Amino acid sequence: MTKKWAISGVDLHLDLKGTRVRAALESALREAVSGGRLRPGTRLPSSRALAADLGIARNTVADAYGQLVAEGWLTAVRGSGTRVARRPAPADSTPAPEAVILAQTRYDLCPGAPDLSAFPRSAWLAAARRALSVASCDTLGYSDPRGLPELRRALADYLGRARGVRAGPEHIVICCGFTQGFWLLCRVLRASGATTLAVEQFIQQGTCQAAKENGLTLTTLRVDERGARVSELGAADAVLLTPAHQFPLGVPLAARRRAQVVEWALDTGGLIIEDDYDGEFRYDRHPLGSLQGLSPEQIVYAGTASKALAPGLRLGWLVLPGRLIDEVCAAKTLADRNTGAIDQLTLAEFIVSGAYDRHIRRSRLIYRRRRDRLVTALKRDTLGVRISGIAAGLHALVELPPGHDEQHIIARAADHGLALLGLGTYAKDPHNHPPALVVGYAKPPEHAYTSAVARLSAVLAEAARSS
Amino acid sequence: MTKKWAISGVDLHLDLKGTRVRAALESALREAVSGGRLRPGTRLPSSRALAADLGIARNTVADAYGQLVAEGWLTAVRGSGTRVARRPAPADSTPAPEAVILAQTRYDLCPGAPDLSAFPRSAWLAAARRALSVASCDTLGYSDPRGLPELRRALADYLGRARGVRAGPEHIVICCGFTQGFWLLCRVLRASGATTLAVEQFIQQGTCQAAKENGLTLTTLRVDERGARVSELGAADAVLLTPAHQFPLGVPLAARRRAQVVEWALDTGGLIIEDDYDGEFRYDRHPLGSLQGLSPEQIVYAGTASKALAPGLRLGWLVLPGRLIDEVCAAKTLADRNTGAIDQLTLAEFIVSGAYDRHIRRSRLIYRRRRDRLVTALKRDTLGVRISGIAAGLHALVELPPGHDEQHIIARAADHGLALLGLGTYAKDPHNHPPALVVGYAKPPEHAYTSAVARLSAVLAEAARSS
Repeated sequence: MTKKWAISGVDLHLDLKGTRVRAALESALREAVSGGRLRPGTRLPSSRALAADLGIARNTVADAYGQLVAEGWLTAVRGSGTRVARRPAPADSTPAPEAVILAQTRYDLCPGAPDLSAFPRSAWLAAARRALSVASCDTLGYSDPRGLPELRRALADYLGRARGVRAGPEHIVICCGFTQGFWLLCRVLRASGATTLAVEQFIQQGTCQAAKENGLTLTTLRVDERGARVSELGAADAVLLTPAHQFPLGVPLAARRRAQVVEWALDTGGLIIEDDYDGEFRYDRHPLGSLQGLSPEQIVYAGTASKALAPGLRLGWLVLPGRLIDEVCAAKTLADRNTGAIDQLTLAEFIVSGAYDRHIRRSRLIYRRRRDRLVTALKRDTLGVRISGIAAGLHALVELPPGHDEQHIIARAADHGLALLGLGTYAKDPHNHPPALVVGYAKPPEHAYTSAVARLSAVLAEAARSS
Repeated sequence: MTKKWAISGVDLHLDLKGTRVRAALESALREAVSGGRLRPGTRLPSSRALAADLGIARNTVADAYGQLVAEGWLTAVRGSGTRVARRPAPADSTPAPEAVILAQTRYDLCPGAPDLSAFPRSAWLAAARRALSVASCDTLGYSDPRGLPELRRALADYLGRARGVRAGPEHIVICCGFTQGFWLLCRVLRASGATTLAVEQFIQQGTCQAAKENGLTLTTLRVDERGARVSELGAADAVLLTPAHQFPLGVPLAARRRAQVVEWALDTGGLIIEDDYDGEFRYDRHPLGSLQGLSPEQIVYAGTASKALAPGLRLGWLVLPGRLIDEVCAAKTLADRNTGAIDQLTLAEFIVSGAYDRHIRRSRLIYRRRRDRLVTALKRDTLGVRISGIAAGLHALVELPPGHDEQHIIARAADHGLALLGLGTYAKDPHNHPPALVVGYAKPPEHAYTSAVARLSAVLAEAARSS
């Protein structure tokens, strides 16, 4: 039955079905208070009176009052009875704005992510099952801030053979993507007295912001067709490089400059941070080994599963010079103690079982084909574009004919439901770069790729005609 | 066949089986350089000479040299031939020390973790499978820094009904455990001009360190049998409280003080951070609702899966006043962008399917029985201890008879293979607290619990006899 009763002129509807009378009473009172229907200071009837009113036991009412007093909704003052406690206005219930979504986008050629529809869900779940079936209980507790030994061992072996990284498992710290790894490094650098970090002329803006937030001043290295001009390093305390495949220009760091930057580190004691974000994806040339292998005590190697698998995994790793391990671990401990254990165990099993290599081989084949289709589609003389940075990675640089406005092209593409990003997005000096698009050809699901490239091609053709 | 050849007096053993001659040559050269056998500056034979020596094509040698030049191991200077590049000493291969492990510990009654052997591995994997089978691809990309809507919706509902938290999904930010949530809050507080944070007299030391690292000055609230003395808040900008079950004393914050601290926040604009670390575990009394429900715009509610499931998951959540959402999200974006998507999806499914409630009900029953067994074992008059803080949570405070030294007891327990922690571990002023143990009765696996308690009891009996 549903009972209806009133306190101080406020009608309360109480569903007294079943035996949960007290819970119902508490909940009705809570609602009346939080909704503002019972105002602060309002005196409630005595438990005896209310119990008689409702036809329930007095103790039930007294217990409910007691509970709400304990929770702070009511106050009970000897001699003055039970009253509604002073409370602020109800919480603002306006939803905070959801993250910006490109609502009308049907095709997406922005760089930075692989084809998420190709994430190997079944193989990942199978690896998780195998890993969890043998993992010791300790792995689910607070653990070594460097990460679980299972994953560090698997990575040491994988990185050694696939990327020429020289490190034992004890030099590896697992972190929540490159983002966290870089963040921790910035903190450690700043704490050790470093003040300046050199970065490449084109770079993710979030990366710059993380460095600045941690008190580092940025200096800029220009990038040309042989990669970052490391001769401009000067007195920087550290440098962040993308030697295998400059992001977003796509050039590798030339051999002489690789040697040169190592010399710089040896001479000045400076630290090199090697962001090897897509080192697994090479198409036309023998893979370049990591820079780290040349001089492990001068170089931090930073890798990630974001491009090879998915950014949502939030799994990255730092391979550290011995002198930095303890400090990075201390920073990690304060920041979040550990990275999620189940994902770590799963990735370890995924690597050791060979599933990771298989996935990369398969992806490499697919992305290489996509790249070739992109190049074919855009090579027509009438478009007047120049494509570069395509020997590796998941994106291409498409330079527009001189005088073209990349923002205009991007806006026109948006009108056609195609999301694009321009080189300006990554330029430290937004007024000083050739007009170009950074085309992420890995991102669309396979079924949408042909249409996405066709639209890009159409937008470029339209721009060429109207110029 | 295995070929042997020499450069500059250094013998190199080359396995020329199969067709991977070039790879074998590169690898042998890399090894010779990185191992120091070929010293910097050493001039290599011309590719013609070496090819003749090895009986392989000259191009193979030239390609191998080219690759190693590209990788920085060798340098090629016109007119001076190919030389070994200048390189630093090989990386220190001494393993960094592994995290300290209580090597001889057979039983562990330290607080801070649940029974990890009871982690519901099958149910978790089943939830992961269901969640991944329906999740959209976008969930595996970079996503809303607040976390995936699936999990925020599930938590908003769960926290509302189980903990009396008032918040829509848009007020929730998923983070990597309480550790990261608190870290982000400290950054946001400091950036907004806050300088002082009040904390309880007994607290995890890592928490204090995180606040200090972010530039906050700590003030201390004494804790008595009614919880933190919030009247001592004074001019603090914010306060961190454990209202449901003070850590580690175990007292709940008294009703009047709950109201009082909300008044303080309303009057001064101060922020309350409610650390509800084990709010799900209540035994002898009706659960106290969260403080947050009283005044959502003054209080940040911080919850975690570390006690209900496992710390290794690294899943926590903040329920935020509207004015803090954007700033916390900005800090999260810089720190690590997102928390792992697969764990988020899995926890959402785990909650929505009812598995979370079932697991908590089961755990509550088990831990309650353990608590009762602990109390029975230690209640003997001869031990002279006083047990408190046991109406809730996963640990008990065991006060030792006056004059006893908790460090002595802990050392004796260690001799018996039993790991314990004392109240001193959590005391802001290590010289001012009664001698006491903080006994985590949830931690041992079920089969080891009886022995663990028997040892504790024996150690306490021995101490009582010898005093």
